[in-house]
Amino acid sequence: MMKLEEIRKGIQPIDRQWLDRASEKTAQLVMPKRALGRLHEISERLCAIQRTLQPSIRRKAVLVMAGDHGVVNAGVSAYPQEVTGAMVQTFLAGGAGINAICRQVDAEVFVVDMGIKAELSGLDLPGSDHLVTRKIAPGTADFTRGPAMSLQEAEQSILFGFEEASKLYQDGVDILGTGDMGIGNTTPSAAIGAVITGVGLDKMVGRGTGVDDEGLTRKRKAVSRGIEVNKPAVENGLEVLAKVGGFEIGGIAGCVLAAAFHRRPVVIDGFISTAGSLIAHALCPAVVDYMFAGHCSEESGHRYMLDYLNLDPLLDLGMRLGEGTGGALSMSIIEGAVRIFREVLTFEEAGVADKE
Amino acid sequence: MMKLEEIRKGIQPIDRQWLDRASEKTAQLVMPKRALGRLHEISERLCAIQRTLQPSIRRKAVLVMAGDHGVVNAGVSAYPQEVTGAMVQTFLAGGAGINAICRQVDAEVFVVDMGIKAELSGLDLPGSDHLVTRKIAPGTADFTRGPAMSLQEAEQSILFGFEEASKLYQDGVDILGTGDMGIGNTTPSAAIGAVITGVGLDKMVGRGTGVDDEGLTRKRKAVSRGIEVNKPAVENGLEVLAKVGGFEIGGIAGCVLAAAFHRRPVVIDGFISTAGSLIAHALCPAVVDYMFAGHCSEESGHRYMLDYLNLDPLLDLGMRLGEGTGGALSMSIIEGAVRIFREVLTFEEAGVADKE
Repeated sequence: MMKLEEIRKGIQPIDRQWLDRASEKTAQLVMPKRALGRLHEISERLCAIQRTLQPSIRRKAVLVMAGDHGVVNAGVSAYPQEVTGAMVQTFLAGGAGINAICRQVDAEVFVVDMGIKAELSGLDLPGSDHLVTRKIAPGTADFTRGPAMSLQEAEQSILFGFEEASKLYQDGVDILGTGDMGIGNTTPSAAIGAVITGVGLDKMVGRGTGVDDEGLTRKRKAVSRGIEVNKPAVENGLEVLAKVGGFEIGGIAGCVLAAAFHRRPVVIDGFISTAGSLIAHALCPAVVDYMFAGHCSEESGHRYMLDYLNLDPLLDLGMRLGEGTGGALSMSIIEGAVRIFREVLTFEEAGVADKE
Repeated sequence: MMKLEEIRKGIQPIDRQWLDRASEKTAQLVMPKRALGRLHEISERLCAIQRTLQPSIRRKAVLVMAGDHGVVNAGVSAYPQEVTGAMVQTFLAGGAGINAICRQVDAEVFVVDMGIKAELSGLDLPGSDHLVTRKIAPGTADFTRGPAMSLQEAEQSILFGFEEASKLYQDGVDILGTGDMGIGNTTPSAAIGAVITGVGLDKMVGRGTGVDDEGLTRKRKAVSRGIEVNKPAVENGLEVLAKVGGFEIGGIAGCVLAAAFHRRPVVIDGFISTAGSLIAHALCPAVVDYMFAGHCSEESGHRYMLDYLNLDPLLDLGMRLGEGTGGALSMSIIEGAVRIFREVLTFEEAGVADKE
């Protein structure tokens, strides 16, 4: 298994010269200067990531990282913990939101059990060929009483995510979306967001799947207590993950590192995926060059996380499901951007007069 | 040819009962309550438009309405007028932005010559089977000196648009996107926007394809003079179109009326399509029930038009190309919404426990 330090050393920022070359090509397209706005930025960054003026996206996949959370004991979620395992089974059966969106954008869905309570491996489930078991433990510890996991487990969760994403990239996946499942996981995500961005808990902690006012108060208290009890060092991404994170969040951080390491694009989803991205960014700031933010979640803290990473989301449709749905839905925008760059004629080719 | 009055009488608002039925179905989907935000609103409105709980979108098309504008004499555009005909040829050849986006979303592109200066019919152009010639005149008159067209021509442009869109809907197109091409057409669109919404010219008149500061001043003066000279009656959509509009804008108004008349969804594009929609709305306010706003244009006045129609755009990506690109790109979002509604299992089917 590759070590975290090797991974970090293997990541380079994108080469700005490719952005310039791509931008020159954009200027020749038969349309007013940069008239398709952010679509040009997307295609140009893909050129820089792929080091080509013929960017391409063929195979697409979403990797849904699943884990359970000890902090649900503090009454932070509107749903019982068994839902995590039940939803993983729904993903495998093709019946969840992420499956429907992925059929729309022609992406495959894979699920990684990073540490859910349920034991699904070995069961003869429909779709189980799309389940990978990298279970670190059956759920994290309750971080209001101590660290969610050990430093070793935190590193392992990142490396497992890195390995699973790397396999997909090596198998020819051109773009990967990150997804998550884990009842209670907006709570560790908010804790990570608060520690790393410094934004207050009133803004960073939201209703998740839909807790009521009392639930929201319990959730803010749990996050506050988790930070107080564990005192994670803000500059140490691994420690933040260990003390107030989750196994699937570490897995997502690993996916983001894998994208940058293999020089491929990754589309992150909402609140939980972005918490994972904050961990990856803390470990290696250059990862952002390879990231696209699929959407802005309805979860209020998400915008602050994206601002911290200097990422502008592609969609803003009031979504707050997770699973990878926002990232997957945005893949058609990214593919549209690629087509514009590759398929639109130049002024010269079209025989059209440019601006007077 | 059907008369405008018959069309207006044939349009009914959607039945709110279908929205309620659809909303009950949404509540059963295996996810937190309405966790996919606007995707639910889209699918529910499609249920109401199609009067079914099995909404479907199979065949998609974009109808690009093209016309030229006498007001370009006032120096309102950064591009020469010949570009209109040249771009129409680029659409037919498949080399423009709208073609690339439509390949991405699997939609066909049809172009209607509503009144361009160039004479393309009868020429043996590649792709000319996708060109329909409904030329009212080779360009409008300069509206700074009198009406852009006669009332009869205005009505004819709407009826031509209605007929062409109706043919597509009758041929089995499930969703139609409106598009436009016409050098100078942000100027009549801004005039229509200012007259109908009452928003001032400083906000409603923008840079279009990219005029400089002096061009912008000329453009504001032209719109101001056009309104002053013609004094269109704000409550009379046909008169507003005749006095300060354009043939392709009338055609777009006809497309929107056709959607509502045939009870099918229409996705409008940016500034020019929305100006056409303002005309359609002035003639028959119920049309908005059948409309989706594809994106928010970078052209500053667009937001005011959308607000007036009470439409919230699906995308906001800094696009300002027109051609129908924003509407077409949003079709994949709309299709994703349909899949969520139809394909996601219910809590019961998935065997997942709902909220505690």
